[in-house]
Amino acid sequence: MTAFSPEIEVAIARTRDEVAALHAELTRYELVVWTGGNVSGRVPGAELFVIKPSGVLYDDLSPENQILCDLDGNVIPSTPGSDRSPSSDTAAHAYVYRNMPHVGGVVHTHSTYATAWAARGESIPCVITAMADEFGGDIPIGPFAIIGDESIGAGIVQTLSGHRSRAVLMQNHGVFTIGKNARDAVKAAVMTEDVARTVHIARQLGELLPIPQESIDSLYNRYQNVYGQNPAGELK
Amino acid sequence: MTAFSPEIEVAIARTRDEVAALHAELTRYELVVWTGGNVSGRVPGAELFVIKPSGVLYDDLSPENQILCDLDGNVIPSTPGSDRSPSSDTAAHAYVYRNMPHVGGVVHTHSTYATAWAARGESIPCVITAMADEFGGDIPIGPFAIIGDESIGAGIVQTLSGHRSRAVLMQNHGVFTIGKNARDAVKAAVMTEDVARTVHIARQLGELLPIPQESIDSLYNRYQNVYGQNPAGELK
Amino acid sequence: MTAFSPEIEVAIARTRDEVAALHAELTRYELVVWTGGNVSGRVPGAELFVIKPSGVLYDDLSPENQILCDLDGNVIPSTPGSDRSPSSDTAAHAYVYRNMPHVGGVVHTHSTYATAWAARGESIPCVITAMADEFGGDIPIGPFAIIGDESIGAGIVQTLSGHRSRAVLMQNHGVFTIGKNARDAVKAAVMTEDVARTVHIARQLGELLPIPQESIDSLYNRYQNVYGQNPAGELK
Amino acid sequence: MTAFSPEIEVAIARTRDEVAALHAELTRYELVVWTGGNVSGRVPGAELFVIKPSGVLYDDLSPENQILCDLDGNVIPSTPGSDRSPSSDTAAHAYVYRNMPHVGGVVHTHSTYATAWAARGESIPCVITAMADEFGGDIPIGPFAIIGDESIGAGIVQTLSGHRSRAVLMQNHGVFTIGKNARDAVKAAVMTEDVARTVHIARQLGELLPIPQESIDSLYNRYQNVYGQNPAGELK
Repeated sequence: MTAFSPEIEVAIARTRDEVAALHAELTRYELVVWTGGNVSGRVPGAELFVIKPSGVLYDDLSPENQILCDLDGNVIPSTPGSDRSPSSDTAAHAYVYRNMPHVGGVVHTHSTYATAWAARGESIPCVITAMADEFGGDIPIGPFAIIGDESIGAGIVQTLSGHRSRAVLMQNHGVFTIGKNARDAVKAAVMTEDVARTVHIARQLGELLPIPQESIDSLYNRYQNVYGQNPAGELK
Repeated sequence: MTAFSPEIEVAIARTRDEVAALHAELTRYELVVWTGGNVSGRVPGAELFVIKPSGVLYDDLSPENQILCDLDGNVIPSTPGSDRSPSSDTAAHAYVYRNMPHVGGVVHTHSTYATAWAARGESIPCVITAMADEFGGDIPIGPFAIIGDESIGAGIVQTLSGHRSRAVLMQNHGVFTIGKNARDAVKAAVMTEDVARTVHIARQLGELLPIPQESIDSLYNRYQNVYGQNPAGELK
Repeated sequence: MTAFSPEIEVAIARTRDEVAALHAELTRYELVVWTGGNVSGRVPGAELFVIKPSGVLYDDLSPENQILCDLDGNVIPSTPGSDRSPSSDTAAHAYVYRNMPHVGGVVHTHSTYATAWAARGESIPCVITAMADEFGGDIPIGPFAIIGDESIGAGIVQTLSGHRSRAVLMQNHGVFTIGKNARDAVKAAVMTEDVARTVHIARQLGELLPIPQESIDSLYNRYQNVYGQNPAGELK
Repeated sequence: MTAFSPEIEVAIARTRDEVAALHAELTRYELVVWTGGNVSGRVPGAELFVIKPSGVLYDDLSPENQILCDLDGNVIPSTPGSDRSPSSDTAAHAYVYRNMPHVGGVVHTHSTYATAWAARGESIPCVITAMADEFGGDIPIGPFAIIGDESIGAGIVQTLSGHRSRAVLMQNHGVFTIGKNARDAVKAAVMTEDVARTVHIARQLGELLPIPQESIDSLYNRYQNVYGQNPAGELK
């Protein structure tokens, strides 16, 4: 069994609590069905992350059955949950953590409207101010990639590096979001589906009005810096 | 610390209770996600209003963390909740209270279907009788305006002054509603999304049948005067 | 105060219980918002019916605040709830009970998809077998009529008399359903929205396949006679 | 009364528990309204299956009122629930169990989006990876058939025999799914509606991007063999 320092053990325990609890937001906002979707969170101060087990129902998730992995996606043996398989998307999460050091949380869903944009290979245009606030512009489309190698992780990192958006629509697949921590990534997943739905519905009946780029910039900068009770701590 | 008379303290406490509780209607009817949206209520008999704190989850709202402001949108110091920031839309609410003395409540949402109309810059045509009852005609579109000055508040007031509708769709943004009190404004927000959705769906498959203006007038006048248990007290 | 026989008092009490409880099905299936919509039930063995009060929230409904009316829609004085106004649609319900003696329940909603068909003045074509089972064919459109005289009630009775359907879409307005009792009318309201939604969505992407008339007839006859535990007692 | 061995009695009891409980998934995912839809499960080791009673509300289902049938769909007399009629779709379930020995569960729904595809007589194209995982390709359309003879059961078996999909869209009717057990069939019903909705919404706004056949094959093979905690036991 791997021994961690007491500080790291506390950080692992807190990350387990946070990741397990945040999965309830995916069902609350109907972003997932059955056992689909997953949340992970980096353990602060360690080369580790915590992720959902594979194929377990949301009602059965607990801090103890979340799975602790290293940044190559290997399960840390003899830790709680280590007798189970981690999410089948673990390799993609691990790739993101290895290559984006500022990322503290990753979320994956097949939420309906966002996945519909992905099935057409279209990015979501930034035509509502909430989208400018949260994503600073369009939500981009990522490449088609399937499980089995590093191509999903690489597609996420390639698309989001240097992009304001914390969400990517992987073509024909679904959504991956990143955040400074797991909660921030969950928020991005919730907002992605919300704007995917609103912009879809808007476009059903006619032309969308663009928002001027300078207004998008202004909204994004304000929201990232002054919104909420503790902007510097809360948002990316 | 500002001292208020006992009567005003009671009025503030009641407004805190009402505003905190009414936020649950926004989640019940799925008009908001995460920390989005807000309700405020004018304190009867005072130059004050109570509004939701910024960036706080709906589950965590209570009478004590609502924020008391003056009609310029300044937080009243040393009152419950005053250590937090008020909603980032506080300036818009304050502008409405200053300029529309008959308004006792304001609500803001990004509810899906209404915001979709706003993203096309289209008002919602009055083609169902419930809309004639509640809004007396079309729900109008307001100007594009972003946070940072008085332009949102001015856009709301300019659009709704002299208009039967208690709701405005701010272009590329979302919904603001007004009411004689906070509950009335929440009802308007609920009904706005309901009619935005119904009329959107109706128009997806063909031409809408107009309602004759004299029928709209008749329905509006009846509903404002005779509906409910106590029309004069309950509705605008 | 009007005196009723003990048998009628029991029948009134049971009808109050049933009508109050059935309103929860309207919110469960999201057929109504705020205080909209209403259920009524005829009191077996009497020239009376029980209906929802006007403008009262669904959470606040109880057997005691349902309102007892005669078949002209007049509130029976000095009975529980009689200090309140009955639903503003009471005249329409009363008209149906007076003119359709086999009807024991009436429901009114503005449910979204059904009202969308009504805003275009289109009946819903019978293209799914569940609709053949339940309605025996198309759900018809009724005339445009507004509150203030007998025109809504007359439009319902005129449209549904001799028709298999227990539901009518009143143009630009919403749904009225009838049933052998209040529960049966509520079921019809639930099924109306369900098929209105399914057929709407089907038609969004192409041509609908018709069901042969002889199959519609066969399905309708079977369902009305052999479905459920006690067909003769349960269904019309 | 038919006497079963103690082992079979235990298997029947477990199947009753499982089938009764699984119906809650149909309402949780809003695949059914009122008394529509049904789940059945084969009793392991016996020529028997357990199915929902006809016309009973979901809130009132329990292990004791599920109905035990032989593989011709006859109710086993003098067993719990045998005083009631089984689901009106019992003959179709029985036909599947008789003709597909590897099937341990069958589910029927009229879920909205799937039934919409069925009303146009269109199969659902495999354009999202979750659909490749779960169904290995398109979800096929089955023939038009109505209750009264073996035509529904025969249509299901004919369409699904030799097909990767565990779901069939019966034309103008709804969904039937099969699985290695009742839970697996319920999962297929949940996933069918999820992909029916996503692909519908995707196609509303433009052309769908196909997934290469070799990727579909790869995803299907992986998911059937390595996903979840116990793939060989959990999935077909």
